[in-house]
Amino acid sequence: MNTTFLEACRGKKTSHVPVWFMRQAGRYLPDYQRVRSRRTFLELCKNPELATEVTLQPIDIFGFDAAILFSDILIPMEAMGLPLEFHDGRGPIFPEPVRDQKAAEALRVPDTEADMPFVLETIRLLRRELKVPLIGFAGAPFTLATYVIEGGSSKNFVATKGMMFHEPELYRSILDKITACTSSYLIAQAKAGAQALQLFDSWAGALAPCDYERFALPYVQTILADLRQHTDIPLIYFANNGATLLPYTSTLDADVLGIDWRIPLADAIRRAGPHAVQGNLDPLALFLPKEDLEARIAAMLADASEARGYIFNLGHGVVPETDPDQVKIAVDAVHRFSSQGN
Amino acid sequence: MNTTFLEACRGKKTSHVPVWFMRQAGRYLPDYQRVRSRRTFLELCKNPELATEVTLQPIDIFGFDAAILFSDILIPMEAMGLPLEFHDGRGPIFPEPVRDQKAAEALRVPDTEADMPFVLETIRLLRRELKVPLIGFAGAPFTLATYVIEGGSSKNFVATKGMMFHEPELYRSILDKITACTSSYLIAQAKAGAQALQLFDSWAGALAPCDYERFALPYVQTILADLRQHTDIPLIYFANNGATLLPYTSTLDADVLGIDWRIPLADAIRRAGPHAVQGNLDPLALFLPKEDLEARIAAMLADASEARGYIFNLGHGVVPETDPDQVKIAVDAVHRFSSQGN
Repeated sequence: MNTTFLEACRGKKTSHVPVWFMRQAGRYLPDYQRVRSRRTFLELCKNPELATEVTLQPIDIFGFDAAILFSDILIPMEAMGLPLEFHDGRGPIFPEPVRDQKAAEALRVPDTEADMPFVLETIRLLRRELKVPLIGFAGAPFTLATYVIEGGSSKNFVATKGMMFHEPELYRSILDKITACTSSYLIAQAKAGAQALQLFDSWAGALAPCDYERFALPYVQTILADLRQHTDIPLIYFANNGATLLPYTSTLDADVLGIDWRIPLADAIRRAGPHAVQGNLDPLALFLPKEDLEARIAAMLADASEARGYIFNLGHGVVPETDPDQVKIAVDAVHRFSSQGN
Repeated sequence: MNTTFLEACRGKKTSHVPVWFMRQAGRYLPDYQRVRSRRTFLELCKNPELATEVTLQPIDIFGFDAAILFSDILIPMEAMGLPLEFHDGRGPIFPEPVRDQKAAEALRVPDTEADMPFVLETIRLLRRELKVPLIGFAGAPFTLATYVIEGGSSKNFVATKGMMFHEPELYRSILDKITACTSSYLIAQAKAGAQALQLFDSWAGALAPCDYERFALPYVQTILADLRQHTDIPLIYFANNGATLLPYTSTLDADVLGIDWRIPLADAIRRAGPHAVQGNLDPLALFLPKEDLEARIAAMLADASEARGYIFNLGHGVVPETDPDQVKIAVDAVHRFSSQGN
């Protein structure tokens, strides 16, 4: 069993720097495309055997040091009672967005075992197969709220911020329910066998820091506190586009902060407080020629030498146009360069 | 003549804090919608009388302290020889993106007087009418390049970054031409009567800081140096989502740095070097109730008291859903609160 990832989460020195990539199981992989081509995205998420298969693919192909459950952050929102549609090329759609008290009250806090059994079954299947740790995950409440309030992806978050500013009680009632849902969902994942948990705050960077502090941070704090009462596995929080949020995120009771590519890694490490750091190669840097890609990775590893624990990752998810051979080059470089010093 | 805006650009104390908003002439205004409804967006940009009319609307209605030419950053790209289409709700499209040496060589550096006379005519008409300074503008080269290389708006900038990383000579040849075009376009605007010039780097924040330094910053430096040789009007550079780029942007030979809303204003001022600062209210903060909006503005003005020159603005453009009454509240609050201390 390769436990370097878990050790790095806890700030321990490891024999090499562990590496995994956000969206490492996904459309850039021909093996994934083959499985995905015969069913919808949601069907794939809800089929434990197939979700297991695609989760394992990048581990087998590239030798990543951690696996992450194949799923989607919006699965629990559907389980809260909101019909969810995915249309290729258009992103997720909630045809019945939550914009008033009646819709907020209609949201139910799901029971993961009863309402999303396929997620827990996937985790159990994966744990039988994996020789690396398995990461479970969920969306962070603000990010999830943007989808259910806007009715899908958004550019300016007019409905979400409008509600935040004009109907803060309604906003809070929705976020409280999403928070309760997320805590119990992640606790269930831990009980089923997840060995670390990551909260994805993909849209945190759309908020002014003062609004992040009021309208996003408290719900993350609640979830982390809930998780600490039920599990002692490492907790990771990733605020995308979050460089200016570090004064807040560095205070969180997480083990690891995920960092996007807009901030130099050395700066992020300096400002991450007592956390291990995970990140932050630009996903598009995988389009660099081999020598340049390796040079960039070497520079990041040098910058990370002072971290209290470091996990190599991208600064956001692998993009579909990525050449899998380039992923192989990157993973090998992280392993090779970080072993040399030991 | 109200010259507070120009004085603040130069770091002088003013009788009140000047204020203008990016996209202050635009879709949120019923008067704009009336003019726009009878023609396409490009027709409006190219009609000096109508472009003048919509430029003046927000000055007359709200009492902004500066006007900005109504136009689009992609107008000079069309003049470089690239067919340009705007489809409502879809953003701009270049059906013939620039992706190889042949397409790069076919780009011509336009002559503003001959190829975009409507822009200069609009400036001349505006100067006859305006009692506040007129800002001319252009897109910054990296931002313009993303549109012409991607063929329109983009999410991940795969074509642009791919070219940057794999064909840096091709990338540079395109950027050099866009840079030459932008310099001569802005010099022509200054000669026609623009009293300040702003460079919009809307997509700068998509770059890792190390790539910004190599692939975006040098072209901005070239334009600013070109402009300094031909005019002494204030120069403003706005890098959207640029908090982590401040170590670079603060070294630029601009008079003013525009700041987006993701960084606390006090932090931005501290890190802006010798520049005046312009920004940075979240455009969505215009959805706050009156008292909360006024409180936020008062806090920003307090934070700005240490700036070497401060111009109140949004952190990005006014969104179409904005209530014009809220814009009035904001402009009045900036004027009222900042006059009290004098």
